[in-house]
Amino acid sequence: MTFMKAQKRSPMAVAVTLALAVTPLTSQAQETTEERLSALEAKLAEVESQAAGQDEGFSFNTYARSGLLLNGDLQSASGGPYLTPAGSVGGAVGRLGNEPDTYVEAILNYKQVAENGTKSHYRVMIADSTSSSNDWTSADGALNVRQAYVEFSDLASFSGVFKDASIWAGKRFDRDNFDIHWMDTDFIFLAGLGAGIYDVKWSDNVKSNFSLYGRSFIDFAADTDFVPEGSHSTDNLILTANNYVGNFQWMISSMKAQENDQRVVEGITEAAETGIHTMLAYHGGSFFGLSEGNFKVAVMHGQGLGAETKSIGADGNLHEDAVSTRFGVYGTTYLSENWRLAPAILAETSADRYLVGDEYQWLTFNTRLANEITENFEMQYEASWQTMDITTMGYNGRNDVDGDYSKFTIAPTFKPQVGGFWNRPEIRVFASYSTWDDELESYAAGDALGADSDFESGQWTFGTQMEIWF
Amino acid sequence: MTFMKAQKRSPMAVAVTLALAVTPLTSQAQETTEERLSALEAKLAEVESQAAGQDEGFSFNTYARSGLLLNGDLQSASGGPYLTPAGSVGGAVGRLGNEPDTYVEAILNYKQVAENGTKSHYRVMIADSTSSSNDWTSADGALNVRQAYVEFSDLASFSGVFKDASIWAGKRFDRDNFDIHWMDTDFIFLAGLGAGIYDVKWSDNVKSNFSLYGRSFIDFAADTDFVPEGSHSTDNLILTANNYVGNFQWMISSMKAQENDQRVVEGITEAAETGIHTMLAYHGGSFFGLSEGNFKVAVMHGQGLGAETKSIGADGNLHEDAVSTRFGVYGTTYLSENWRLAPAILAETSADRYLVGDEYQWLTFNTRLANEITENFEMQYEASWQTMDITTMGYNGRNDVDGDYSKFTIAPTFKPQVGGFWNRPEIRVFASYSTWDDELESYAAGDALGADSDFESGQWTFGTQMEIWF
Amino acid sequence: MTFMKAQKRSPMAVAVTLALAVTPLTSQAQETTEERLSALEAKLAEVESQAAGQDEGFSFNTYARSGLLLNGDLQSASGGPYLTPAGSVGGAVGRLGNEPDTYVEAILNYKQVAENGTKSHYRVMIADSTSSSNDWTSADGALNVRQAYVEFSDLASFSGVFKDASIWAGKRFDRDNFDIHWMDTDFIFLAGLGAGIYDVKWSDNVKSNFSLYGRSFIDFAADTDFVPEGSHSTDNLILTANNYVGNFQWMISSMKAQENDQRVVEGITEAAETGIHTMLAYHGGSFFGLSEGNFKVAVMHGQGLGAETKSIGADGNLHEDAVSTRFGVYGTTYLSENWRLAPAILAETSADRYLVGDEYQWLTFNTRLANEITENFEMQYEASWQTMDITTMGYNGRNDVDGDYSKFTIAPTFKPQVGGFWNRPEIRVFASYSTWDDELESYAAGDALGADSDFESGQWTFGTQMEIWF
Repeated sequence: MTFMKAQKRSPMAVAVTLALAVTPLTSQAQETTEERLSALEAKLAEVESQAAGQDEGFSFNTYARSGLLLNGDLQSASGGPYLTPAGSVGGAVGRLGNEPDTYVEAILNYKQVAENGTKSHYRVMIADSTSSSNDWTSADGALNVRQAYVEFSDLASFSGVFKDASIWAGKRFDRDNFDIHWMDTDFIFLAGLGAGIYDVKWSDNVKSNFSLYGRSFIDFAADTDFVPEGSHSTDNLILTANNYVGNFQWMISSMKAQENDQRVVEGITEAAETGIHTMLAYHGGSFFGLSEGNFKVAVMHGQGLGAETKSIGADGNLHEDAVSTRFGVYGTTYLSENWRLAPAILAETSADRYLVGDEYQWLTFNTRLANEITENFEMQYEASWQTMDITTMGYNGRNDVDGDYSKFTIAPTFKPQVGGFWNRPEIRVFASYSTWDDELESYAAGDALGADSDFESGQWTFGTQMEIWF
Repeated sequence: MTFMKAQKRSPMAVAVTLALAVTPLTSQAQETTEERLSALEAKLAEVESQAAGQDEGFSFNTYARSGLLLNGDLQSASGGPYLTPAGSVGGAVGRLGNEPDTYVEAILNYKQVAENGTKSHYRVMIADSTSSSNDWTSADGALNVRQAYVEFSDLASFSGVFKDASIWAGKRFDRDNFDIHWMDTDFIFLAGLGAGIYDVKWSDNVKSNFSLYGRSFIDFAADTDFVPEGSHSTDNLILTANNYVGNFQWMISSMKAQENDQRVVEGITEAAETGIHTMLAYHGGSFFGLSEGNFKVAVMHGQGLGAETKSIGADGNLHEDAVSTRFGVYGTTYLSENWRLAPAILAETSADRYLVGDEYQWLTFNTRLANEITENFEMQYEASWQTMDITTMGYNGRNDVDGDYSKFTIAPTFKPQVGGFWNRPEIRVFASYSTWDDELESYAAGDALGADSDFESGQWTFGTQMEIWF
Repeated sequence: MTFMKAQKRSPMAVAVTLALAVTPLTSQAQETTEERLSALEAKLAEVESQAAGQDEGFSFNTYARSGLLLNGDLQSASGGPYLTPAGSVGGAVGRLGNEPDTYVEAILNYKQVAENGTKSHYRVMIADSTSSSNDWTSADGALNVRQAYVEFSDLASFSGVFKDASIWAGKRFDRDNFDIHWMDTDFIFLAGLGAGIYDVKWSDNVKSNFSLYGRSFIDFAADTDFVPEGSHSTDNLILTANNYVGNFQWMISSMKAQENDQRVVEGITEAAETGIHTMLAYHGGSFFGLSEGNFKVAVMHGQGLGAETKSIGADGNLHEDAVSTRFGVYGTTYLSENWRLAPAILAETSADRYLVGDEYQWLTFNTRLANEITENFEMQYEASWQTMDITTMGYNGRNDVDGDYSKFTIAPTFKPQVGGFWNRPEIRVFASYSTWDDELESYAAGDALGADSDFESGQWTFGTQMEIWF
């Protein structure tokens, strides 16, 4: 059939064919109306696909947020979901009315379908982050390429357990990363350069992914052109298997950063050279079986380089004896026709993390609540409470802290169409009240809660923000 | 009707629907020709809209210029419309044959229409500026994100005076900025982060915009991650009302930059903490009532932080007593079938601007003239004359100057289709002669006219350039 | 005819017209089926063109590669086709299994057709290069704008020898650059800012291009805003004529960098101020007349600033007496149904290049071989051998070397559809063995083969990579 054949051609082949096809259509009057209608219908389906970038051609995706976060003096306020001492080791709090930055991901895709039916998807992501409110941020901005990869699917020559598999190589965020949106934290953030295979199907209900990622550690440059000899050799190689049985997911990753144990961290050379990380997760199709909605729950455990339980393999300062266990859960549901609820818990305990004897324990409880009022307007509320008990052993100049942080936000929100937690874009105004134990201010000199800041241990912030993804 | 309903769906909804729709069309022979034709016509209209990014999907906009500006020794010449002493306070001269840079704005849009008819428009602008002629400018370039916002229009639940209103939040250039193109100067350049509402219609003829912008000052970094504690607190908050009655526009802005009066400028702490700015403008639908064309005229006045009359709220060094008044006017018309004329005047008087007793007075007269010769070719001419009288009180190491600058340019220009001042792209070659009073060279050591430059007080420059927008 | 007329309209004109056109089509039942079919066919052809960005609207192009290059210790390895001492003067070796970087070119095009039929093409290219494997590379990355130009073709008012000519201005890579893909080296890389004309047709078989490029030298910044006074004055102006007679190409370029002879290079001021460069090439439509395929062969010669034979005018340190001659050839063919072969040779001799008495001689032989096994899989092999004899006279702290480098790579490769050397994207895994004479390690302290590196004189590297262009 014309439709199926044309779909499988590469764009260039299509272009040539269409040029040939169009001419006869307009010149040959002897064609029947039926033939011309069928040809038009087939071609239109194809062009429509291309116009939308569904199967072929260019398409555009985005995540972006931008806004003002002000304190009571009408000055820019510090903030962000990682502003507490626990935030320095991944302990996020709620993000609503708490973000001071403009963060943009511009994602350009190009999809092709080969004549044999094999599909390819190229993706490049350019991202920027700044908390400047200047209209020209070449000095403050941070534009960089976060992803550049190709993925093949529907491979004509794949069969058996590989029949539905797709393969990829390049630089990317792993396809199966998932998050607690309201705290801006992934359960798992696996990213870097490498290659892998998705959806090896052992049976209808059981499938696996396998990947090799190499990545630099976050805190120091790894460009072989610019850094001193040897320092690039700390690249961390991560082998991952990700297995799905029904709603269950079991992920296991092992990693090695050759010679990382020779690096000096806080005066000693006990950094981990290897690590292991595992996660058991459940992706629920309802709100904990109680009502319509969804929920996700996961427990993550890691040792050595694997003790950074979210950003797998990203922290090169972890001690060879580091052990971390994190638990996360969230759900979404409608309480009534107009009220939505999304509670979440994230907690971690980590020991011997950077220095023998240190301890990092924190737990965050967060709830987003929304009241849909008109087609374009809803009231959003977020309550966040975090408790933490941190013994640093003096790592990075930080002091021990033990205390709580709380934040409550109210955000009148406009959107094109209300109807669920995932509808975007949103335009918000918001007011937040946050308060915390004084002791938390002694953790680190430069952080948002530090005592030398204007940011006092209880304060109002307010502002406006847009958020969008598509 | 199918057409209207489909138009209002979000792209994802459309995709699903179309997939369903296409199959029956090709398989159900029992449909009448009439039904199939109608379905095709409706779908094609929708796809056409998506392909062009008119109402839905991706679209691309640009402003860009790039070229060579050479002096008589075949070396790169300094230049730009702000090259004179008056340019340091906004006194632009003509841009034709006077620009040494590659400046690019890549604007990516994504539009959606919700089922309820509400439209959303996401826009991100990535811009770069460099005067390097290297093919790799990672060290010289300045790529950054200048805009990232969403705007909603046709909101289903808005009515009354808000019926035609649109709302926005994020980082943007204000929608209603307008410029004198030939001098590369806006009447008003309002930009930053915030939120607002456009087109609150009080009556058929009267409408208003309201916005809150926060912005950093141009001359110092404002990123809370990188700058010393406290310096980010100088963010300037600007409340604006913009009112239109027929062809008249009245804009009023008040602003406050908390604690800016505590900053040290030239050894004293007298910088303004607040400001006010207003503009009265007329947007003419003819060439001053004399012939077909258009004209715009405006007078702007500002005090304190508002004394930067164009880039509202962008200059944090303004004195608390600063007062500025600026006048601008331009028009375009055809003198005959093949000759176009665009005269413009821009002038400002500013006192106590940075230091008590300083005075900045300048006036620019500029005229662009074009003679359309073939469908693809026209001769362009530009004459620019600027007079200035500046008393700096030693601000920023600058000296008093009093004198004139003149430039005359001739530019043979190719374009896809002649026919007006706004047709782009253009490909030009040009030769300019500029001359100025020697005294102007003593204003500032490092500027284009500075005495230590190869740039002498009368000189020829020439080169080639492309300019495009769409 | 409707089709032709619509094609020539600018997008905005089209948008308006279509809006008008669609309404009657859906409302006027009195139109005949024939008329409606014809209108649909014409419109669809136009929309299809716009959706694909063929003649009008937005389109997207890319070159990108990204992957991991590891040594036997599982650490990031140095590499790249220019890793040998000869590489410092353009002597590339094979690239397969030898690239440590993520290099991305995102090319955004916008095409318009004026009512008079004149076409315009705007192109902006944003590129990045990094060998970091971090997922956030704002510190290591190098995003910059490499191209921003417009090109006009089918100019309505051009006739005679200019009838098929196109003109351009802005910043660009010359249209007629061509390369030996497998060694990542152009025969000619002409780039910079300027203007030119392509395809002045003297006869059916004879045509010429003329261009003026200005460019900075690679090794030092040229931004007039940031560099010390005068240093930007070393911009190199290049006048080029490129002539084609049948399959033959003769290119001649002369260049001048005013006052470059006053720059101090290695303590003396003998750098060239002018240069000349020429190339004679043949573009073959078969594999050297022996079988189907293609081949290209060229000899390039340059003196003074023209003695950089590939990147015309890019090297400002060349001596006034520098003389270089380079020879390149490659071909591609199928040896059998499933085996493809692409041999290449590149060699250069250069004397008095940077200092009187220096000598740079090198020759690379490279062969890519591929065995297509399934629709999606082929085995690729590459053998590369380079010999070099370099007498530096101590330039840039470099020592004399005389020796050989060899590399052999095997790369199992997945692709959507096998079938030729130009099919992309590809996903590869690879293993390379490279070996070289110890003497080569003494050339320069910091280079990939330098003795202080982990990189020893014979080693295995392996990894994975994607490569794509479209």
